[in-house]
Amino acid sequence: MIYDLMVIGGGPAGYVAAERAGHAGLSVLLIEKRALGGVCLNEGCVPSKTFLNSAKMFEHAKHGEAYGVTCENPKLDHAKVVERKNKVVNMLVSGVKAQMRANKVTVVEDEAFIEGRTAEGFCVKTSKETYCSKRLLICTGSSAVVPPIEGVAEGIKDGFVLTNREILDLTEVPKQLVIVGGGVIGLEMASYFNIAGSEVTVVEMLDKIAGPTDAEISAILKKNYEKQGVHFKLSAKVTKVTQNSVVFEKDGKTEEVPADKVLLSIGRRANIKGYGLENLGVLTDRGGIVTDCYGRTNVAEVYATGDVNGRSMLAHTAYRESEVAVNHILGKKDVMRYQAIPAVIYSNPEVGSVGETEATAKEKGREIKIGKVSMNFSGRYVAENEGGDGICKVIVDKATDALIGCHMIGSYASEIIVSAGIMIENEMRVSDIKEIVFPHPTVSEIIREAIFSL
Amino acid sequence: MIYDLMVIGGGPAGYVAAERAGHAGLSVLLIEKRALGGVCLNEGCVPSKTFLNSAKMFEHAKHGEAYGVTCENPKLDHAKVVERKNKVVNMLVSGVKAQMRANKVTVVEDEAFIEGRTAEGFCVKTSKETYCSKRLLICTGSSAVVPPIEGVAEGIKDGFVLTNREILDLTEVPKQLVIVGGGVIGLEMASYFNIAGSEVTVVEMLDKIAGPTDAEISAILKKNYEKQGVHFKLSAKVTKVTQNSVVFEKDGKTEEVPADKVLLSIGRRANIKGYGLENLGVLTDRGGIVTDCYGRTNVAEVYATGDVNGRSMLAHTAYRESEVAVNHILGKKDVMRYQAIPAVIYSNPEVGSVGETEATAKEKGREIKIGKVSMNFSGRYVAENEGGDGICKVIVDKATDALIGCHMIGSYASEIIVSAGIMIENEMRVSDIKEIVFPHPTVSEIIREAIFSL
Repeated sequence: MIYDLMVIGGGPAGYVAAERAGHAGLSVLLIEKRALGGVCLNEGCVPSKTFLNSAKMFEHAKHGEAYGVTCENPKLDHAKVVERKNKVVNMLVSGVKAQMRANKVTVVEDEAFIEGRTAEGFCVKTSKETYCSKRLLICTGSSAVVPPIEGVAEGIKDGFVLTNREILDLTEVPKQLVIVGGGVIGLEMASYFNIAGSEVTVVEMLDKIAGPTDAEISAILKKNYEKQGVHFKLSAKVTKVTQNSVVFEKDGKTEEVPADKVLLSIGRRANIKGYGLENLGVLTDRGGIVTDCYGRTNVAEVYATGDVNGRSMLAHTAYRESEVAVNHILGKKDVMRYQAIPAVIYSNPEVGSVGETEATAKEKGREIKIGKVSMNFSGRYVAENEGGDGICKVIVDKATDALIGCHMIGSYASEIIVSAGIMIENEMRVSDIKEIVFPHPTVSEIIREAIFSL
Repeated sequence: MIYDLMVIGGGPAGYVAAERAGHAGLSVLLIEKRALGGVCLNEGCVPSKTFLNSAKMFEHAKHGEAYGVTCENPKLDHAKVVERKNKVVNMLVSGVKAQMRANKVTVVEDEAFIEGRTAEGFCVKTSKETYCSKRLLICTGSSAVVPPIEGVAEGIKDGFVLTNREILDLTEVPKQLVIVGGGVIGLEMASYFNIAGSEVTVVEMLDKIAGPTDAEISAILKKNYEKQGVHFKLSAKVTKVTQNSVVFEKDGKTEEVPADKVLLSIGRRANIKGYGLENLGVLTDRGGIVTDCYGRTNVAEVYATGDVNGRSMLAHTAYRESEVAVNHILGKKDVMRYQAIPAVIYSNPEVGSVGETEATAKEKGREIKIGKVSMNFSGRYVAENEGGDGICKVIVDKATDALIGCHMIGSYASEIIVSAGIMIENEMRVSDIKEIVFPHPTVSEIIREAIFSL
C-alpha cells in the first residue's frame, strides 16, 4: 500500500504528527529506530522530572524545620529513583502506543533509510521491508553534541563521560560529578545530583549559566545553586578529559577538577545524517533541515518538524510544528509562530521564560518598558518560601503597550509561564492584562504585580 | 481637610482601592477597625496557605517511599506552624502598610461610623475624630455565619466552637475535630488538621462537598479526603451542639459525633450593620449592598466593593471590583465582569475552577460540548503523582466554539487555572487554544489535552 504520510522518528514531533494525521483520517506509517516517545520521553524531559520530583520531596524532608516539619535520617535512594523513572517512562510510552493504535497509525520499530522518490511516492527501507508514501515527514530529532576534545571519545567508550542518555540510567550517585555545559540539561542534572549527594562542578564556556535566560535571573539561579553547594567555573574552556578529571582554561590559566563521572551537556545537534536524506536533495543549513512556516522543506511533499530543523529544540515546539505541518497537508489554514514559546528549568528554584528578554528586545531595536517585582509580592510565595529571592520581569513594547516577554524565577514558574505565553500570543496590552482576575493567593498573581509596577 | 476618597475597611477590597486611588493622585483615607489586610490576610486565605504548605511538606516526608525518599519519625509541630503563620502574616501586613505609605494613603486604625452627608461631603466618625470626604467606598467585608442552633452561641463563648478566625490560632491539634460545612474553608481546614493528626468529621447539609464545584470533581475530592482519613456526613443537618459533640439529622435519624473542637464554616455574610450605613440610605438586598457594574450603590458617590456586596466573596474579585470602582471615580472606562473569576481549593489534591460548570451552563440553557481527560495525560503529573486520579474538564459553547469553563483537580491546579481564565476572558475558541504552545512537560498541558479531546 501507499501511505498518505510516512513519519520518520517517533519522538514528540513524530508521534504528535502521526496522531493528528491519523485522527484526520490519513493512512500513517511511523518508523522509530530506538524507542517510541523519543529522547524527550525516554531520556530527557520526563525522566529528569521524576528525578527532580524525588529531589524536591527529599529537600522537604530534610529542610522542613522552618515550616514546623522535622524527621530523622532522611535518605534519597537513587537506585529506587531510577527504578521509578523507568516505571513512569514505560507507562507513558504505553500511552503513546495506545494513542497510535487509537488513531490507526501503523508503527514500525526499526531503522529507516530513505531510498528516494519513485512514481509510487517516497520509498523508505527498513531491515525487513520497503514502504511507500505520498508524503514524508522527517522527525529524526537531535543528539548530544560530542566535541572533539582530547579524552572525550575514550571517556564515552569507558563509561566515564556520559550524555543525557547515560546519566539518567546511572544507578549510583557519583562522588564527584563534573558537568560540562551549564544549559538547561546540565543545570537540572547539577541540581538533582547535588541534592542526591554528589560534589557537583559545572564548567561553562560562557560568562553566565542557563543559555539565553535573562541575565539577572540567570545570576539569581546561580546564587541559589551555589548556596545549595554546586560549584561553577564560568568563562572556562574544557581542553582535556583525563581518566579522573576535567582540565579547562580560565583567565589564561589551566585548572583541573577531579571527577568520578563527567556529564557532557554542551548542546544538541540535529540528526540529518545516516538515513538517506541526501537521496532526496533536502536542503540543510547550519546543521538543520531548512523549513518554512508550514514545516515544508525545499522538496515538495517533504516536511520536517522538531529538533531536526535546529530551530528551538523543545518538545512543545515540536508538537506545534507538527500540528502546523499536518494542518498544511490537510489544507487547513495554520502557520508556525515562535514568539510565545515558553522555556522552563525545573530545578529548585524553577525558571520560566517566554518571549523577548531585555537583551533580545534591545538587539532587535525595540523600545521597551520593564516591570520587575520580587516574588515576595505574592502572599503564597512568602507563605511557602522562607527567604526566597525570586523575581518576575515583564517586557512591554513601548509602541503598542503589548506584553512581549515574561521571565520569572521561583516556585511554580513552570506551571505559571504559559499564562504569559497566552497573553503574548493574544497580543494583550497592559490595560487588557490589568483586567484579568488572578486567583488569590497564588504565585501566578506575580504577573499582575509586575504589570501594575510598570 | 476633605478627602477625595474615604475607604471603610482595609481588607483586599479596601487596600487595593486605596493603593490605586492614591497612586492616581487622589487624597485617600482608609479606616480599618481590626487589622490591615482584612480577613484574607490575617485570618483567611494566607494563613491557611501557610498551614497547608507545612502539611504538604510533612506528607512528602511521610510518604516519600514510592519516590525513593525515606526518613524516620517525621513530625509536624503545630505550634511552630502557627508561629510561622504569624510571622508570614506580619510580614505581609507590613507590605500592605508600605504600599499605603508609598501611595500616600492616610491609614486610621479605628472603628468608623458613618454620620451622614453634609455640604462638606460624607462625614465619618472614629473614636477620636470626624473625617470628611467627597466619596465613600464601603469595603467592610463579611463575617462567618453563626446559625441560631442550640448550643452554638455558648460553644463560641466557651471556645469550643470556632470560626475561621479562632481555628487559625489554635496552638494544639484537637483530637476530634468536627467541621460544620464542607465548603472551601471547611475542606482546607479538614485537610490540614487531618494531616496534623486530628480525627476529622465534616458535616455538610448538601449531598456534595465543595459548594458550586463541578459534581464529578467534588466526588473525586471527597474520595481523596476519605482515603486520607477524613469522615463525611452529607445531607446532614446539625440540630444541636453539646459540650463535647455535634448532633445532626441524616436520613430521618439523629446521629451524634464526638468533638473536642467544632469549626463553623457554613458560609459568610456581608457586614452591613453597625457602622451607620442606614444614615445614607444605601440599598441592600439579600444581606449585601446592591451595586452596579462600576461598584456604585444607589447613593451618588457611594461605592461598595468586595464581600460586602455579597456577590462572589473572594479576595481577587474584591481586588478587581475595587479597581473598577476607582477607575470609575477617575473617569476611566472600565467595567466589572464575573465570567472568568477563578476559584481554588488549596488542599491535596488541589482544585481549580473558572467559568461555567456543566450544571450552570445547562441551567442557563446553553448548548455545550465537554472535553474531559485524566490528569495522567500529563507526563509531569505521572512523574509526580503515584496513583493520581485527577481530571481536567473544559466546557465549550457549541454556538461560538469558545471556552466558557474549565475545572480541574490535581497538582498545580491552583497555579494553572488562571490560564483558562485568560482564555475565557479573551473569548478564545477551540481553534485558537489549539495554537497555544504549552511548555512540556508541565501539568498545564492538560488544558491542551482536554481541548484536543473534544
